[in-house]
Amino acid sequence: MRAITIKEPGGPEVLTLAEVPDPLPGEGEVLVEVAATAVNRADVLQRQGFYNPPPGASPYPGLECSGRIAALGAGVSGWAVGDEVCALLSGGGYAEKVAVPAGQLLPVPKGVGLVDAAALPEVTATVWSNVFQAVHLRPGETLLLHGGSSGIGTMGIQLGKAIGARVAVTAGSAEKLEACRALGADVLINYREQDFVEALGPDGADVILDVMGAKYLDRNLDALAVNGRLVIIGMQGGVQAELNIAKLMAKRAAIVSTSLRARPLDEKAAIVAEVREHVWPLIDNGRVRPIIDTVLPLADAAEAHRLMESSTHIGKILLRA
Amino acid sequence: MRAITIKEPGGPEVLTLAEVPDPLPGEGEVLVEVAATAVNRADVLQRQGFYNPPPGASPYPGLECSGRIAALGAGVSGWAVGDEVCALLSGGGYAEKVAVPAGQLLPVPKGVGLVDAAALPEVTATVWSNVFQAVHLRPGETLLLHGGSSGIGTMGIQLGKAIGARVAVTAGSAEKLEACRALGADVLINYREQDFVEALGPDGADVILDVMGAKYLDRNLDALAVNGRLVIIGMQGGVQAELNIAKLMAKRAAIVSTSLRARPLDEKAAIVAEVREHVWPLIDNGRVRPIIDTVLPLADAAEAHRLMESSTHIGKILLRA
Repeated sequence: MRAITIKEPGGPEVLTLAEVPDPLPGEGEVLVEVAATAVNRADVLQRQGFYNPPPGASPYPGLECSGRIAALGAGVSGWAVGDEVCALLSGGGYAEKVAVPAGQLLPVPKGVGLVDAAALPEVTATVWSNVFQAVHLRPGETLLLHGGSSGIGTMGIQLGKAIGARVAVTAGSAEKLEACRALGADVLINYREQDFVEALGPDGADVILDVMGAKYLDRNLDALAVNGRLVIIGMQGGVQAELNIAKLMAKRAAIVSTSLRARPLDEKAAIVAEVREHVWPLIDNGRVRPIIDTVLPLADAAEAHRLMESSTHIGKILLRA
Repeated sequence: MRAITIKEPGGPEVLTLAEVPDPLPGEGEVLVEVAATAVNRADVLQRQGFYNPPPGASPYPGLECSGRIAALGAGVSGWAVGDEVCALLSGGGYAEKVAVPAGQLLPVPKGVGLVDAAALPEVTATVWSNVFQAVHLRPGETLLLHGGSSGIGTMGIQLGKAIGARVAVTAGSAEKLEACRALGADVLINYREQDFVEALGPDGADVILDVMGAKYLDRNLDALAVNGRLVIIGMQGGVQAELNIAKLMAKRAAIVSTSLRARPLDEKAAIVAEVREHVWPLIDNGRVRPIIDTVLPLADAAEAHRLMESSTHIGKILLRA
């Protein structure tokens, strides 16, 4: 098969389409013939040499895909060859085929095309596992999403609104904020022009989903409501931060940090099962949909990475196998 | 009535027994004739001028008491004059009488003397609300208690063991560690001689209850297990800390910080109700008991504060009204 390989750590140009051996589905896995994959920030870090795949994972980038089941490994039940699926991966999505633990498979939702379904696994699993499983956003609470127009942001807005939360977003342009508004965001903050703590006002946010890490930590604490929960899933603004514990205590607040890729199989399967139970019905009935900026051929992975790094996109960037 | 007043911020000598007006029970409150109160670290901070009572609270120190109900305010049901109770207070326990919201009352458990019951409200509410309500310690998990021989530590050991957790403690002397062992602690760490991260070993702690704050933050993260939860309820080692977010993310861990005194009435009542439901039966049947170091007369509050500040005590220090 063909896959996007990383010749050596570097810029987008190191991504090279190459002939590689087909993967084989192990016990409890299925082989998926890939229709599309999606680009995530983690892929860029992996390309740069900063985020190696966990032990046992495919060496090729790609943390999610859609496609058709081509073969079943031993011990797999509930799925059949030919089923249209999408899947959360530990890597290997930038390829024509990928082996996936069956617990990470989801059916393609009603009304979503096979290619477009590649936009769903990472954002739904990330938003669900953090905002709902880890810190229990409740109806009537305020959710602040940094990067509201990103793949995660656009899904976070929709799921936040679907459960009856008030949703605030930050983004860097009027165009991005308009896209967030169209998806239902209630409070629109241009971080280039406004301080998000001031813009949120004194009530603050009950839950903040953050991708900036150190750079935003202190202001995120300022923006939290009493009993607020800050979830850090990215460190685009650095790793090492000053934490004022008295501020945390005065708000009786929590800081949680998670990642999806390194989790053991059983935790991933549990997340995917909850996504299927709670999020899939919202997509099936049209309340929530994948937001896709661009679809490029797999061979143009370098171009897709340049687009991701330009941060001009709104929603997901897909690669069609 | 007589109460311990704080003449001016300062050392133990500023605590002065004085004649003051009797408190009146407001709507939803009862008047308790105090049998005993207990000394908490927060009382020392209040005496030093670092921890003012929240708005509406009594100006006298004392965050818990035991005694008999002397009068009922308007709208109180379920309690009667003469009932033997103990109570969580927002202040005012260092006195002969105190007015208490009815939601913060607990009956004196079976087999516990009226004076000794003053040792229970703060430690049971603190351990329950943090270790169980906030971060859900589960059977089979490891709980690390810093200051295992303190009032909170001695209750934490007993409640941790009662639900089937493994309990590790730090303390500063062999005598204190022996007291922890006698209460059921499984792992005994003398922090003057051992690094607690090394002593815990590679599996670490699933839940850490911390009173040191900044000084221990980084080592507490090192000591956490994957999916671990650090709860900070004291800042004896400072407020401002360096936080390595990558370390938090690699463990998919949470940092929570809380305090009890500043919470609104409904949250305090909810905590007290859970304590009555889950902890009181363990005390009624003798599985868990108050650990009391010393009982002194109310007039000796200064001496009690000197003992607290010497940190030579094991368990609670009580003042008999």
